Amino acid sequence: MNDVERIPPRSGTAFDLPAGATLTVIDPDGSQVADLLAFSAEDVNEVISSGRTLDYAETIALTTGHVLYSNRSKPMLTIVDDSVGRHDFLLTPCSVDTFLHFYPDKPVHRGCFGNLAEALEPYGITPDRIPVAFNCFMNVPVDGGTGKLSVLPPTSKPGDRISFRAEMDLVIGLTACSAYASNGGSFRPIDYRIDLHDIDQVPIGAPSMPGRV
Amino acid sequence: MNDVERIPPRSGTAFDLPAGATLTVIDPDGSQVADLLAFSAEDVNEVISSGRTLDYAETIALTTGHVLYSNRSKPMLTIVDDSVGRHDFLLTPCSVDTFLHFYPDKPVHRGCFGNLAEALEPYGITPDRIPVAFNCFMNVPVDGGTGKLSVLPPTSKPGDRISFRAEMDLVIGLTACSAYASNGGSFRPIDYRIDLHDIDQVPIGAPSMPGRV
Repeated sequence: MNDVERIPPRSGTAFDLPAGATLTVIDPDGSQVADLLAFSAEDVNEVISSGRTLDYAETIALTTGHVLYSNRSKPMLTIVDDSVGRHDFLLTPCSVDTFLHFYPDKPVHRGCFGNLAEALEPYGITPDRIPVAFNCFMNVPVDGGTGKLSVLPPTSKPGDRISFRAEMDLVIGLTACSAYASNGGSFRPIDYRIDLHDIDQVPIGAPSMPGRV
Repeated sequence: MNDVERIPPRSGTAFDLPAGATLTVIDPDGSQVADLLAFSAEDVNEVISSGRTLDYAETIALTTGHVLYSNRSKPMLTIVDDSVGRHDFLLTPCSVDTFLHFYPDKPVHRGCFGNLAEALEPYGITPDRIPVAFNCFMNVPVDGGTGKLSVLPPTSKPGDRISFRAEMDLVIGLTACSAYASNGGSFRPIDYRIDLHDIDQVPIGAPSMPGRV
């Protein structure tokens, strides 16, 4: 087991995650969001895809056992543990534009988008390639009747976590979210840990999914 | 008013749509889906973004008055008319992989993804750049309690339509969908019309959206 790394409030980072390794994202103080992006280390044009993932999972409520797919329909990450059970895969990272839109009276921040763009630049990933992120702990209920979505404070408690197994060699982008609504207005850090030693302890693959008729 | 163009069943096309023009997508026989993509004609790295759009609209039920945004948070298309009121902006276009996944016993088709990739290739748009599409008439209810999504036959009747005003010069990709579930198992054509003459008849801009706290 490796050391826990800390992402300071309103910042982000990027790192390599080899196939078979486990990434655990931890909310140390509770009620904080971490935007997660994944790119194939072999070709960063292959990128995490909300549209492929939601299609195959047939749910927006992704948790243990679900696979996060790439735009090429390849498994990138499998959720192997999840103490929260509520995350978002609908929304793009907060940015200067979203601050201007939602918080016109508050100081503008470059947001998770700006933090990810800077962290991913050394990997040759440009800002236009930042897609919908898997937003760990982000609480975005959808009203099934009206379709209306809400951004509420996360339900995560201090020490809550979600773990992913890498299904290919990946470049990961990860933030401690900068927006007001997604974390209840208080900006907190995010911790993460990479474990290289528990390969083969968890069965590979998505839960069985019946064909559509 | 220009002529109506027909997209044959299980095929797709691409075309330029100048700023101010109106694109009307018509379901001539009813219960058919049309996947729509938009790219900035000036720089095809600027592309339609489900994540930005859903964030700003605060709903997954997009209809008249809603704006479809780019990955750069710029308005690309405004929905100016909609006789159906149920469309999808969660899922990526069907592809060889989705056919193998959902319909393992049926003949494989390259799907809307393959049709869009071929139609967009002359514009310098590669398959990896195909994001979540705005799926006109696609009926994907989400259960607000469980998060489960379903792909049901469209509610569109023969002649139903949705119209978009271009907010910038665009390259549009558009299909008559190839998948089984999205159109109730019968493959039908899609019609579309481009009107260049009704600029300024509809007020520009999204409905007012309150800031988040």
